[in-house]
Amino acid sequence: MTGEVRRGNMAAAAGPSFWLGNETLKVPVALFVLNRRRLCDRLRQNKDVQKNSVVLLQGGEETQRYCTDTGIVFRQESYFHWTFGVTEAGCFGAVDVDTGRSMLFVPQLPESYAVWMGKIHPPEFFKKKYAVDEVHYVNEISSVLASKKPAVLLTLRGVNTDSGNVSKEASFEGISQFNVNNKILHPEIAECRVIKTDMELEVLRYTNKISSEAHKEVMKAVKAGMKEYEMESLFDMGGEYYCYGSDITCTFPANGKFTPDQRAIYEAVLKSSRAVMKAVRPGVAWPDMHRLADRVHLEELTKIGILKGNVDDMVKVHLGAIFMPHGLGHLLGIDVHDVGGYPEGVERIDLPGLRSLRTARSLEQGMVLTIEPGIYFIDHLLDQALHDPAQSCFINNDVLQRFRGFGGVRIEDDIAVTASGMELLTCVPRTVEEIEAFMAEGQSSAKSFDCLSSQKQ
Amino acid sequence: MTGEVRRGNMAAAAGPSFWLGNETLKVPVALFVLNRRRLCDRLRQNKDVQKNSVVLLQGGEETQRYCTDTGIVFRQESYFHWTFGVTEAGCFGAVDVDTGRSMLFVPQLPESYAVWMGKIHPPEFFKKKYAVDEVHYVNEISSVLASKKPAVLLTLRGVNTDSGNVSKEASFEGISQFNVNNKILHPEIAECRVIKTDMELEVLRYTNKISSEAHKEVMKAVKAGMKEYEMESLFDMGGEYYCYGSDITCTFPANGKFTPDQRAIYEAVLKSSRAVMKAVRPGVAWPDMHRLADRVHLEELTKIGILKGNVDDMVKVHLGAIFMPHGLGHLLGIDVHDVGGYPEGVERIDLPGLRSLRTARSLEQGMVLTIEPGIYFIDHLLDQALHDPAQSCFINNDVLQRFRGFGGVRIEDDIAVTASGMELLTCVPRTVEEIEAFMAEGQSSAKSFDCLSSQKQ
Repeated sequence: MTGEVRRGNMAAAAGPSFWLGNETLKVPVALFVLNRRRLCDRLRQNKDVQKNSVVLLQGGEETQRYCTDTGIVFRQESYFHWTFGVTEAGCFGAVDVDTGRSMLFVPQLPESYAVWMGKIHPPEFFKKKYAVDEVHYVNEISSVLASKKPAVLLTLRGVNTDSGNVSKEASFEGISQFNVNNKILHPEIAECRVIKTDMELEVLRYTNKISSEAHKEVMKAVKAGMKEYEMESLFDMGGEYYCYGSDITCTFPANGKFTPDQRAIYEAVLKSSRAVMKAVRPGVAWPDMHRLADRVHLEELTKIGILKGNVDDMVKVHLGAIFMPHGLGHLLGIDVHDVGGYPEGVERIDLPGLRSLRTARSLEQGMVLTIEPGIYFIDHLLDQALHDPAQSCFINNDVLQRFRGFGGVRIEDDIAVTASGMELLTCVPRTVEEIEAFMAEGQSSAKSFDCLSSQKQ
Repeated sequence: MTGEVRRGNMAAAAGPSFWLGNETLKVPVALFVLNRRRLCDRLRQNKDVQKNSVVLLQGGEETQRYCTDTGIVFRQESYFHWTFGVTEAGCFGAVDVDTGRSMLFVPQLPESYAVWMGKIHPPEFFKKKYAVDEVHYVNEISSVLASKKPAVLLTLRGVNTDSGNVSKEASFEGISQFNVNNKILHPEIAECRVIKTDMELEVLRYTNKISSEAHKEVMKAVKAGMKEYEMESLFDMGGEYYCYGSDITCTFPANGKFTPDQRAIYEAVLKSSRAVMKAVRPGVAWPDMHRLADRVHLEELTKIGILKGNVDDMVKVHLGAIFMPHGLGHLLGIDVHDVGGYPEGVERIDLPGLRSLRTARSLEQGMVLTIEPGIYFIDHLLDQALHDPAQSCFINNDVLQRFRGFGGVRIEDDIAVTASGMELLTCVPRTVEEIEAFMAEGQSSAKSFDCLSSQKQ
């Protein structure tokens, strides 16, 4: 099945959808109906959830720049987006866990809003737009919820393991009259977000396709001496679509031609990337994939002559982390560093490199992750290794000198774990030959790189 | 003197400067040295400022998206930027009012920062980069300020008259040991920001030039049926440079050709815009400029046949505000809606249209403003006028019907008030003939619109 057909199927789904027009993807809001159903199913299996519980989430608010009236571009809060797909600011949403009945609360806009912003939509409009069962105004939330006589409101409070920040719990005037539990919801909804549905995968495929195109545009246009912001200005609407993200890194020589040293390091990283891709499947532990990439790097750096000695011994002293001081990759979804990396029972491994992993989970079908090995030459870390006899004995310092100031190479692709392996979502030129040919074509504005054939593996 | 020569002069100024490389403008940080001097001069003339007062400002902080680790692009707080020109987050700045001695406090970064973000700069680096007299770490602020034995710290607290929000006052652990006054500074520094120096004007000229080019790119590329986000994707680094803004509106037909009705409304707005530009000079009251634009609109709408009767009588019933329900323009600078629009003694005029003005001041040399008249056909307001006998008697409803759903026309230029008139900062095709010719050229990628000759008036 090709990407086109899949997209066609999704667009043909009955019911309302999100669409930015023209060639963009139509996303049925049935995606969120299913998310809510999955959440309720999961909560009903939790013995701590009593009968007649209601999930209550608060959406994001519009914000302004410091004390001014310059608005900061609104982006929906991720848990709220996952549950309701609502693009407007200032909303609340509730779901009855037993029945799955969904309620959306929208702000009541002042009449003056219509002068500049156009027609003010009635609640019925949002009911249809978002396929929810009821819509009320935010100022009615207390009375509407009271009329449902919930045993408990389940609100969202928990630590984001990437930022260390705590999510903002829903709150409204009158909430003190309700029985509120803010412990149960967070781990359960995070766990739902970790495994992507087919509809979510479809959006992530699309976001990756668009971002891949944007990266290719930059590769074609780049010239030595250009500034990063000049390349940024070429980026299209890549990165995120309907709040679903992508995260791609391309490394290429600004003049379109790899030097021998650049080629050697680049191909070492590509080799570890592809070794990981080959090994990925359900049941594999992510830290083992990090270790695999590290080992390939050490082998290749030995072949290049920067390192010498036995690779097993290098592994024992964590030499790989000198060159890859970051984690191999992370979960990806509505957040770039998506939630659920360290649920209860999964512990961070406190060793060089591995401690930077944003998840230490074992892989499951439906997870979406980045695979992003890198080899860097960072003075601070190289000097540290050279001062440590346990590490410096593996380093050919005369060869290493040549790579001081080299910078680094990172290759980052996005993948989805399938039943038997993985699906590659990213589609950009990756081998040295592909990159050089593509950049040469760019100079002459010739045909674009085609990787339909490499889209799946 | 041409723009090129002025820019050359500024770039040639001695000392450090802000520069994004390549063709971008070099802005000497002497701009902020002068701003601090102007602020101190002004404060010393204020009888409420005692000897040995120290201005203390807190810069903006990095923020993240909700509970995630996705950073929101940092933009410096505007008052802090005006005073110090510092691009880094998490700083404080102080100025001794008597001596003008300036102190910058920068965050002490952890060593791990160097792994990914590069060399950690010592205080000496920032002293040179920003031409301040002393640099210390933020965690030293309490002891450093105490060693200066200030009589009072002047902190910033006041209402932004555009947003109604209150500025965030500087605060640090240990501030309670100081005598703090948060009343004096806000009106004085806002007043300084209202009048732009030559160096600031130079940056605003540049920002306008770049934004004008971006608008022209969009005009050339636009096709009927394109979405707004597709046009946004064409925008370059316009809008803001080193925190100095611009605000331009172009109205043009997506297919490149005005219909007779579009031309009529467009030319009515252009006529009011140019009438205002002709009248602008020091001493003129801004509300009178709004009234002038209103009157031109009413005259032109009468010629078109939408209105009938005596224009003086229309003015008496505020008919102009039905078509231009917004203010004529606003101060522009480091904020798009720049501060200082309503200082003490300048009152908002509570009448239709006029009450939307973001300033009711009389013009002074060095002010930078937008001139942005508009004519809109907004059902909500037209129906209101038709239901008011005092207004409906001037309306030819049969002609008006033709303009239902027309939308609106706005023409927005940025100008600087000079000693005898004004300087036009914006340079885009403005007459119907210029726009049609420019858009036709766009189709064939021919030469770009040249308005060097119209840049000053």
